[in-house]
Formats: sequence, C-alpha cells, structure tokens
Amino acid sequence: MLSEREKALLSGPNFLYIATVNEDGSPQVSPVWVEVEDDLVVINTARGRVKERNMSRNKHVALSLYDQANPYDVVSFAGEVVEMNEEGASRHIDSLSKKYLGRDEYPYHEPGEKRVKIKIKKVA
Amino acid sequence: MLSEREKALLSGPNFLYIATVNEDGSPQVSPVWVEVEDDLVVINTARGRVKERNMSRNKHVALSLYDQANPYDVVSFAGEVVEMNEEGASRHIDSLSKKYLGRDEYPYHEPGEKRVKIKIKKVA
Repeated sequence: MLSEREKALLSGPNFLYIATVNEDGSPQVSPVWVEVEDDLVVINTARGRVKERNMSRNKHVALSLYDQANPYDVVSFAGEVVEMNEEGASRHIDSLSKKYLGRDEYPYHEPGEKRVKIKIKKVA
Repeated sequence: MLSEREKALLSGPNFLYIATVNEDGSPQVSPVWVEVEDDLVVINTARGRVKERNMSRNKHVALSLYDQANPYDVVSFAGEVVEMNEEGASRHIDSLSKKYLGRDEYPYHEPGEKRVKIKIKKVA
C-alpha cells in the first residue's frame, strides 16, 4: 500500500523518477509525470521508448520523487508493472497535461506516436 | 565526455538521481548531491547504504537530473563507477554541504558513519 506521504507527493505537481533495467542488465532512469489511481502509481509514455521497452520485458522498476517545494522531502520505493495499455492512454496523457501544464490537451503529441498508460504497484 | 549542458546542470544546485542495480537484478533509485571534477560526476554516500553496496558490486549506473528552475530541462545518461574512496570523503561531503546548504560543514554526520566519495564516468 502507498503511504499517505507517498500519495501526497505523487498527487502533487512533482516529477517522478522511474528506473528500469536495460536488456544488458544496466539501469536506466528518467523523469515522468505521475498520478495515483486506486493505490497504483500511474504514468504514461510512448510505445518504443527505452523505458517502455524495458518495462515490457522486465516489470521490476524503482521509483523516487521529492516535493518540488522541498527537495529534502523524498520518497523512494520499488514497484512492479501490473498493466501497460494503449486503451485510454491518449485521454490519460491529456489528464496529466492538465495536472502539470494546466492545459486540457497534451501539447506534445508526435505524429504516429502511440501513448501507453502504465500502472505500477508498490512492492517495497 | 560530459556536454556543456550536462556540466552546467551538474554544477548547479540540482539534485542528481542515480539508479543502481540490486543483487536480484531489480533497479534502485535515489537522489544525491553532486558536483563535477575533471569530467567525472562525483557524489558522496555512506558505506553500507543500498546504493553504495550496489555500486561496489556492479559499476553500471544511470543518472538523470533536471534544472530546479525548469524541470523540463532534463539530462539523462549512463555511467560507470571508476572510483570509490573513503579518503577525502569527509572533506568532500563538507564541500557538497557548502554547495547545497551554504554550510561549511555537513550537518548530518551520524556516529560511526564512513563517508565514501564516488567518481562516475559518463558512458552513453
């Protein structure tokens, strides 16, 4: 279960760092927008990106974020990908765009890009 | 070689996210203070912490940080640990304390804690 503090940080306008594992076993890390749904961490990426390919192959991830207003307020935990879905993923990136940019529609869609909505369960 | 943009972000008062690999192959990620020395990324941790144990076993890491003043100015790259040393590590954490907290001496030393200075080469 996510703690109240984790939920608060994930629900705020903070950037989640997500680490995945490359095919050669080395780590990969990058920041993403995030929200919480039903005790799951929910992010959104595009099909074919390194993190998306890594999570398709290996469901183990690590997550960390801090409060933008206080970088020393940090939470870090391990996660497991429980769902990766193109369905609803475009609406979902619009919802994240609203949260982070205050814009109803995600302004950075690229032609031919397939968005993927990814749900992650906290495991440690 | 670190790019000028990478050097600028690493030299600013920004928080570096470092991902390492756990013994079971899953990733681990957490934020650290950072500075640049001779084209190497230099961080500091305490002996026995998860990231320190992971880097002692597996030199492959991933690094990412953004400009605190503009979270959309992001750099991410892979790294390889080239040196882990207790020598000079206490003075080094004081130097990072000066950079991040404006304090000449690191205020969070714990009794018995051994600091470790870690140098990382950019590899991709």
